[in-house]
Amino acid sequence: MQRSSFSLSHTLLCAAAAVCAALVTTNAQAFDGIVEKQVFNLPTYTTVNGQVIKGVRIGYETYGRLNAARDNVILINHFITGTSHAAGRYAASDAAPGYWDMIIGAGLPIDTDRFFVIATDALANPNRASATVISTGPASIDAATGKPYGPRFPVLAARDTVEVQKALLDALGIRTLYAVAGASAGAWMSVEWASAYPERVQRLVSIVGPGVDSPAYAIAKMSSWGAAVRLDPNWAHGDYHGKAEPLAGMTQAMRLVTLDALSFAWADKAFGQKWADPSKNPGEAAANQFAVDATLEKIGEARAKGMDANSWLYTLKALQLPSAKPERIKARSLFVGISSDQIFPPLLSKRAVEILKAQGTPAEYVEMNSPNGHADALGATIGLAGPAIASLLAK
Amino acid sequence: MQRSSFSLSHTLLCAAAAVCAALVTTNAQAFDGIVEKQVFNLPTYTTVNGQVIKGVRIGYETYGRLNAARDNVILINHFITGTSHAAGRYAASDAAPGYWDMIIGAGLPIDTDRFFVIATDALANPNRASATVISTGPASIDAATGKPYGPRFPVLAARDTVEVQKALLDALGIRTLYAVAGASAGAWMSVEWASAYPERVQRLVSIVGPGVDSPAYAIAKMSSWGAAVRLDPNWAHGDYHGKAEPLAGMTQAMRLVTLDALSFAWADKAFGQKWADPSKNPGEAAANQFAVDATLEKIGEARAKGMDANSWLYTLKALQLPSAKPERIKARSLFVGISSDQIFPPLLSKRAVEILKAQGTPAEYVEMNSPNGHADALGATIGLAGPAIASLLAK
Repeated sequence: MQRSSFSLSHTLLCAAAAVCAALVTTNAQAFDGIVEKQVFNLPTYTTVNGQVIKGVRIGYETYGRLNAARDNVILINHFITGTSHAAGRYAASDAAPGYWDMIIGAGLPIDTDRFFVIATDALANPNRASATVISTGPASIDAATGKPYGPRFPVLAARDTVEVQKALLDALGIRTLYAVAGASAGAWMSVEWASAYPERVQRLVSIVGPGVDSPAYAIAKMSSWGAAVRLDPNWAHGDYHGKAEPLAGMTQAMRLVTLDALSFAWADKAFGQKWADPSKNPGEAAANQFAVDATLEKIGEARAKGMDANSWLYTLKALQLPSAKPERIKARSLFVGISSDQIFPPLLSKRAVEILKAQGTPAEYVEMNSPNGHADALGATIGLAGPAIASLLAK
Repeated sequence: MQRSSFSLSHTLLCAAAAVCAALVTTNAQAFDGIVEKQVFNLPTYTTVNGQVIKGVRIGYETYGRLNAARDNVILINHFITGTSHAAGRYAASDAAPGYWDMIIGAGLPIDTDRFFVIATDALANPNRASATVISTGPASIDAATGKPYGPRFPVLAARDTVEVQKALLDALGIRTLYAVAGASAGAWMSVEWASAYPERVQRLVSIVGPGVDSPAYAIAKMSSWGAAVRLDPNWAHGDYHGKAEPLAGMTQAMRLVTLDALSFAWADKAFGQKWADPSKNPGEAAANQFAVDATLEKIGEARAKGMDANSWLYTLKALQLPSAKPERIKARSLFVGISSDQIFPPLLSKRAVEILKAQGTPAEYVEMNSPNGHADALGATIGLAGPAIASLLAK
C-alpha cells in the first residue's frame, strides 16, 4: 500500500504550507496495520533518585509479531517533542502515519515481517494535546490531593524511562533487545539503554544523536530550550494549573527548538527576505516582521498549545541527567548524522564511533546528506539511512 | 613588544576562569600605540527609512597613519556585542587590548606601518557599560523631551551605520577603502559596505560571517536572541527607563548568544557533567544546576548588565535589514570560516565564494580549524587567518 511520508512532526512543522516544500516527498511501502495505543501500568515506581511514585504508566504501540523465542524485539525511543507513534495510523482516516513510517513496515529496513517493534512514550511526555499520550509526569493527578503534581513531582532522569520500559519488557517476557533505536533525544535514550543493560542490547541505532558521552554543551542547550518558559510570569514556578498558562514562554521555547532543528538552506528556500505582511515593511517599525519569523512564531504557538510546560521542563531535565558510560556499551552500533544538523552536528556521531571502536565495540558512522537540518531525521530523509539500518539488522 | 591576546570579548566570556582555558594563548607582536577614542558628529542624519535624527554621533579609533594619497585605509566593523576597540589599549594599564590585537599592528597581517586602520562603533551599539561607546541610538537623550528615546527611536538598518561611516570617511577626505573587514556581524556589515559602494571598496574580508545573501535563517536567529528580552515584563515594550530594567530577559539573551558562539568541545573540556555546587545534585531538584549552566548564567548576567536592552533589540533589527546584493560586490574577497562554528557554519562562507566567483568577482575561502566555535574568531585563533589576510592585502 502506498503511503505518504508526511509525518506527525512535519504536521507540526508544516503549520504554514511554505515550510513543507522542502520536507515532503513520497515513499513506497510502510507499516500497513492499524495501530492501537496500549497502556503499561506499574503500581509503584521508585525513581533513580529514590522517590516513590504511585500508579506510574506509559503508553506504547507495537508493530509486527513477537516470535516464540521472544528475541526479535526492536525498541524505538522518540525525539524530544515526539511520541510513541513511530509507524502506522491509529485510524485509516488519519492524515499522517507515525514519523518513521517510511522505515518501519513489511519489507522496510525495520521489517515488521521479521521484527516485533515496540515504541513507547517517555515519562513526562509533554504532548498533552495527543489523547494517546498518557505518560505519568508533573501534569498527572496526585491521588493525595486530587490536583496535578506540578513542580512537586519528583525529578526524573533519562534512566527512569529506561527502567519503566524495562519493566514493560519484563512483563511481556522479553529478555533481550535485537536492537534499540531512536532519533535525537531518542538516540540519547537508546545510548542510555545500551549502557544500562549491555547484556540485553544487541544492536544500537543512534540517528542525529549527541554521541555516547553526554556532552556538557547538550546540557546547556536543554536549559536554553527551557529558559523562555521560566521567564514567563504565568509559569509561576510551575504552579500555573487552574490559572493562565505560560503560553508566551512555551511559544518562544518551541520557536527556538523548531529553528534549531531546521537549517539555513531550509529558511532561504522557503522565505528569503519576504515580509510577513506585504503592507508592513520590517524596516519601518520594530513590530513589522519577516515571513520567516511570523511562520516560526505561528509554528511555535501551535506546538506550545499542545504541550504542558512543566512536562516540557521535566523532559529537558531528564535529558540533562543521563547515566550512560561509553565503556559499558557492547552493542553493535550504527551512528547516523545529517550534514546540515545544527543541534547535534555530525562530529558528535563521528566521535562516538571513534570512542566505541577504540574500546573494541563494533561501530559505524553513516552520514545523510540533506540540506534541511536536524528535523529531517524525522521525515522522509530517514530513508537515506535505510540501507545502513538494514545492514546492521542483518548482522 | 609582547602582548597578551586576551581580548575584550574574552574578558566577558571569561567571567569564570574555567571558560578561558581553551581560549587564551599568547601571541607575538601587536599594535603598540595607546589608542584614543574619537567622536564623529553629524548635525542631522536621515535614515534609509526616511526618518530624521538630530545630533547623530559614533565613536571610532584609528591605528597607523593616513598616507598622503589617502588610499591606505582599512575599515574594521565589530561583532554584534563588540565595540570599535579592535586593537591597542586606551591606557598602558588596561588588562587587555582590543579583540583583534594579534592581527593589527606593526608587522602583523593588518600592518599599521603600512595601513591606516579605522574601527568604528555601530549605531545603537548596546555596550553602555563601556564609557567609550557613545553611539546614537534608543538610549540617547531626545533633546525634545530630555529623556531617552526608548522605543520612539527610528528603526535603523545595517545600511544606516554604513552611511554614517561613509560620512566620517568623507569628512576625513577618504574616498576609497583599501579593505573593509570584520568578524561575525562585522563581516555582515563589511559585505554591506562592499555592496553599497562597490567602487570604493577594493578588498573585503569576512570572518565567520553569514555570507553574501543575508539568509532568512540569520534573520530568525537574530529574533531568537531578542525573544527573551520581550518576555521579560520589565521590558515594558521598551519603556523601562527610570524603572526596573529587563535584566532577567537580557541575561537569557546573552546566555544564548554566548552558548551559540561556543561549541560542544569547549563545553566538554571545561565542564563535562560537573555540578555547579558539589552539595547540590542536579538529579535531586529542578533548581540544582550543572556547572556549565551556572557559568553561562553568570556570564550572561555579567554581559547583560553592561548593555542597554533597547539598543540590543535595535542592533538585532538592523542586522535583519541588510541591503547587500551579491551581484554588486566587486571587491577582491576573502571569506574565513571556523570548522566548529555553530552560528554561521563554514558552508555559508563557502557558498558566498561560489556565488562571487560565478559572477567573476575574485574570492577565496579559508577555514580556521578550531574546536571552540564562533567566538574563536574574536581571540587568538584569528591568528590562523593571518597569512590569508596578509596575502589578500598584498594583492
